[in-house]
Amino acid sequence: MKRRLLTASYLLAFLISPFVHADSLPSWNDTAPKKAIIEFVERVTKEDSPDFVPLAERIATFDNDGTLWSEQPLYFQLLYIFDVIKAKADERPEWRETEPFASVLRDDAKAVLASGEEGIVKLLSVTHSGMTTDEFAESVSRWIATAKHPTTGRLYTEMVYQPMLELLSYLRANGFKTYIVSGGGAEFVRQWAEQVYGIPPEQVVGTYGRMEYEIREGHPVIVKLPELALNNDKAGKPIGIQTFIGRRPTVAFGNSDGDFEMLEWTTSGKGARLALVLHHTDSEREWAYDRESHIGKLDRSLDAAPSKGWIVVSIKDDWNTVHPGAKP
Amino acid sequence: MKRRLLTASYLLAFLISPFVHADSLPSWNDTAPKKAIIEFVERVTKEDSPDFVPLAERIATFDNDGTLWSEQPLYFQLLYIFDVIKAKADERPEWRETEPFASVLRDDAKAVLASGEEGIVKLLSVTHSGMTTDEFAESVSRWIATAKHPTTGRLYTEMVYQPMLELLSYLRANGFKTYIVSGGGAEFVRQWAEQVYGIPPEQVVGTYGRMEYEIREGHPVIVKLPELALNNDKAGKPIGIQTFIGRRPTVAFGNSDGDFEMLEWTTSGKGARLALVLHHTDSEREWAYDRESHIGKLDRSLDAAPSKGWIVVSIKDDWNTVHPGAKP
Repeated sequence: MKRRLLTASYLLAFLISPFVHADSLPSWNDTAPKKAIIEFVERVTKEDSPDFVPLAERIATFDNDGTLWSEQPLYFQLLYIFDVIKAKADERPEWRETEPFASVLRDDAKAVLASGEEGIVKLLSVTHSGMTTDEFAESVSRWIATAKHPTTGRLYTEMVYQPMLELLSYLRANGFKTYIVSGGGAEFVRQWAEQVYGIPPEQVVGTYGRMEYEIREGHPVIVKLPELALNNDKAGKPIGIQTFIGRRPTVAFGNSDGDFEMLEWTTSGKGARLALVLHHTDSEREWAYDRESHIGKLDRSLDAAPSKGWIVVSIKDDWNTVHPGAKP
Repeated sequence: MKRRLLTASYLLAFLISPFVHADSLPSWNDTAPKKAIIEFVERVTKEDSPDFVPLAERIATFDNDGTLWSEQPLYFQLLYIFDVIKAKADERPEWRETEPFASVLRDDAKAVLASGEEGIVKLLSVTHSGMTTDEFAESVSRWIATAKHPTTGRLYTEMVYQPMLELLSYLRANGFKTYIVSGGGAEFVRQWAEQVYGIPPEQVVGTYGRMEYEIREGHPVIVKLPELALNNDKAGKPIGIQTFIGRRPTVAFGNSDGDFEMLEWTTSGKGARLALVLHHTDSEREWAYDRESHIGKLDRSLDAAPSKGWIVVSIKDDWNTVHPGAKP
């Protein structure tokens, strides 16, 4: 009798396989986006499907800031910069009188952002260059292990999205190679992406600077230079994808206008493609912002989504959990 | 009785496991390099070994020209350039009067090389830029499928080294991610590396140029620009490795002074590392050249090998087969 029951439930499972697969995404509500994701993955992974995508071509690219982890009140890498500048301030007394350093030391994020690209470049040059890759890696690793988010008090690695962790695992279980394609720094994200997302350094595409190989005291080092090599944002994202991966993604997921071209490049390829846009709609459990935001502005991508077939995911409506371990 | 024999042979196989593994490398003679490779791979893959390297960190990088396939009488990518220039010559009558195009059309490789970097850049600009990545991919794919090597008359893909194909497979079977790190063009190598070496596009690091994202007749394309972004040769190789892979290799294999820094960067890392240098010593089955060669010059790396612990592989002495399907 028990065996017959087992058989019956096996058959049932087979008949309702989308719902069985749905267990891989427990933090997603049973709304349209989850159904579309599962339907798509099944369509491209079944060998007899006309939309079958061979294993080697299953590339999924994810933006990081605002897509895999939060990005408010400021991009977390900018908060890293703030912390490094503050830690170095005693050695550099002139910073108290020099912008944008003085604004950083006063915690005046608005003034820092108002300093524009020129200001950001100054901050990057003292925090992201002039050291070896090993020294930078150590600094980021130490920060990410201890620094706390200014409003939630949580570790930054706890500010990742639980539904996205599940989606990454679900895609990998279906043979996808998951990539980060971030406007943030590749070397910054690589220090913790493997531990947090299961994404190894070689699958992190990001903004990167020029580097130099040098022998110091008989040992080779790689030194980070202040010049930008690729700004992996907007139209830079398809370029980063082509340069690093050399294949057009099958799946792409972003959250802002900085992801427009990545999504466009993905869905204009032949064959089945899936593009998703995360819409920050939940002011209670996370943040709510889109067209007017200075961080993660979502305007053009939101308008384009319906006509381009991009799926808009609303945090408020489509996720039952936001951050891991948070109250549902 | 039969079963007992099987058991005995199983035990025997277990006791002489290095020789069983050796079967993975049948085109390698039982000389020192093969023994060193097998000994190294066993040392880093056994979980109880003090030199154990976790799966995620098993990165093996291979130079391409002269390491995975031949590079005489000229780098094959240069022969591709020659073929493309000749095919376009009718549309560009002025090339008959302009260097280095005129030398290409006269098949005067020496004069082309004598035109130096300036000449090569001119050739690259008309053969490797000004088209979309899709157009370039199609051109290379067509060429590699049909063009023949000038002295052997074989397809270029038949000019790969059988012992290296075996080594790539052996490393992959032991959990290594195999990468190409080539001074040649990344986009050039990516068109055929997966089919020929089993190395997917995203594991090809090479010289690359700037690119531009553009909408043409409503469809996005990526256009190859004439400016160089990274010359992935000499000190550029560790930079390419850091930029694309973000991890120091465990194994690196090169054949020329252009690989010096890649080998140096690899073996100066902590823990067990293996570096190999292919020495072209076989004028009968392949080519013999080293210190005086204009292509694949091997001088500094050959001198450095003994003191740095890099293993020199002699084609004549250490390989019983060179190209696949060739007479042993």
